[in-house]
Amino acid sequence: MAFDAIETPFGKTDRIVGGSATYVAYAAGNFVKPIQQVSIIGYDFPQEELNELKRRGVQLEGVETVPDKKSFFWSGKYHLDMNSRDTLVTDLNVLADFNPVLPDSYQGAEFLMLGNLDPIIQIKVIQQLKKRPKLIVMDTMNFWMDIMMKELKDVLKLVDVLMVNDSEARQLSGEFSLVKAAKKIMAMGPKYLIIKKGEHGALLFHGNEVFFAPALPLEEVFDPTGAGDTFAGGFIGHLAKTKDISFNNMKTAIIVGSAMASYCVEKFGPDRLKEINKADIDARIQQFVELVNFDIQLV
Amino acid sequence: MAFDAIETPFGKTDRIVGGSATYVAYAAGNFVKPIQQVSIIGYDFPQEELNELKRRGVQLEGVETVPDKKSFFWSGKYHLDMNSRDTLVTDLNVLADFNPVLPDSYQGAEFLMLGNLDPIIQIKVIQQLKKRPKLIVMDTMNFWMDIMMKELKDVLKLVDVLMVNDSEARQLSGEFSLVKAAKKIMAMGPKYLIIKKGEHGALLFHGNEVFFAPALPLEEVFDPTGAGDTFAGGFIGHLAKTKDISFNNMKTAIIVGSAMASYCVEKFGPDRLKEINKADIDARIQQFVELVNFDIQLV
Repeated sequence: MAFDAIETPFGKTDRIVGGSATYVAYAAGNFVKPIQQVSIIGYDFPQEELNELKRRGVQLEGVETVPDKKSFFWSGKYHLDMNSRDTLVTDLNVLADFNPVLPDSYQGAEFLMLGNLDPIIQIKVIQQLKKRPKLIVMDTMNFWMDIMMKELKDVLKLVDVLMVNDSEARQLSGEFSLVKAAKKIMAMGPKYLIIKKGEHGALLFHGNEVFFAPALPLEEVFDPTGAGDTFAGGFIGHLAKTKDISFNNMKTAIIVGSAMASYCVEKFGPDRLKEINKADIDARIQQFVELVNFDIQLV
Repeated sequence: MAFDAIETPFGKTDRIVGGSATYVAYAAGNFVKPIQQVSIIGYDFPQEELNELKRRGVQLEGVETVPDKKSFFWSGKYHLDMNSRDTLVTDLNVLADFNPVLPDSYQGAEFLMLGNLDPIIQIKVIQQLKKRPKLIVMDTMNFWMDIMMKELKDVLKLVDVLMVNDSEARQLSGEFSLVKAAKKIMAMGPKYLIIKKGEHGALLFHGNEVFFAPALPLEEVFDPTGAGDTFAGGFIGHLAKTKDISFNNMKTAIIVGSAMASYCVEKFGPDRLKEINKADIDARIQQFVELVNFDIQLV
């Protein structure tokens, strides 16, 4: 949970609320309650945002507030293609001392989403859960591959689903072909691999099976910040709601995640996620059905 | 119909048979007969290739043979991502004088595929058909946008379906968003627009409707030369076979084209296309069904 300042070809924000866990919570809250949040914030994180999250069924007992420090802050500028961005500022602030302590009330959680963070912190959360969750999903990024590959690989052995983008899958595996990359990565631990390709959709690998979900072609991607986290929130939210972790249901979960992400990018920060309701989500899922549906005609 | 010499990260060929019309014919011949070919070749084009095409129902009356010149020759080298390539040699040879003359026996053709070529040559073929075909599909490339945009736009007014890749759609429209680009391009003439995105699949636009077809995730793309032409051949071949040019059937045609293209890239040149049969094509189409199929579950 953090602050971002974002510049895109379409506009610019001052410091607004962001952070991986914020997006995941706003997305997943549409499908399952409670969401048991683990994070760290500073004195400057707005109370009204915490209230809004609580109102949506997000428990904040696991969110530590540091009274004399600021929240994590990131500032970046997107290029026209929205797939690449420059980081302008990274102020760790409270994140420098993050040592997550799981409240007793969180014990027994069946679905665990590990946001993109230091692998040592990710592993600490897993280790504190006395009963292994039914499903552990993990996000990460190239930054951790650059500086903590060993620790990252330790976490990989403990998770069920890994989410990375295409260039990260290539970096992690040393393979250019995503099919070959997927095989190598699944051999590192996760039985399921999701490769996110931004505007080009996402691939889900499991054993020898593969599923492809497109991204919705949008007139404008206003701000892609948080789209990956929102996707993750929709994905695990759907699985937690249905309690079905079959490959078949994961396919549906990826479509749900893609639908959520397609809303996220329409406005700055999590603003759009706060506006939409179940009917909006259903309408967007229906658009995905129409986008890929075709009649089979064999030769 | 031409010769190519190709270098990819996986291997290298000497001069092999290639050319847009060759790939289109090999692909479309699986679905409909006769294919009435219009092209120009030199004295060096191999007779056995012409025999093979004839055997597959390709009529060659419209293929001019110039006895004292060589066939068009292109040589290129692909980079690791296979989406970008360097042209090493372009020898126009016979293509410099190409002035297509349609045989009388070609009159009444219902489906016309205009391969990527000088727009003035494309327009000459359209004008020679006394009865307008039921469907005219056109391929083109950035090269013609750079040097003959006016003539290119003249052809656009006469065709039903345009096929371009994503960067060409952006260049032609001046819009970065593919959704906005599609609207502008359809206003130039074609009622249908196919945007090819290589390994990221293809989009079909028509009015306010959009359809997305993925590319099959492959372990190895051995040689992408001709993949776009093979896609075009499968697309128009399916439409010509079914004689149904509805948006719905075009969706199926795009899957058929994608299946054909996924075979094309497995070997150098059109080699793989000569090996496959109807059962292979059906099996590949079935893989596409499995790749995108998911259960709808509304929130």
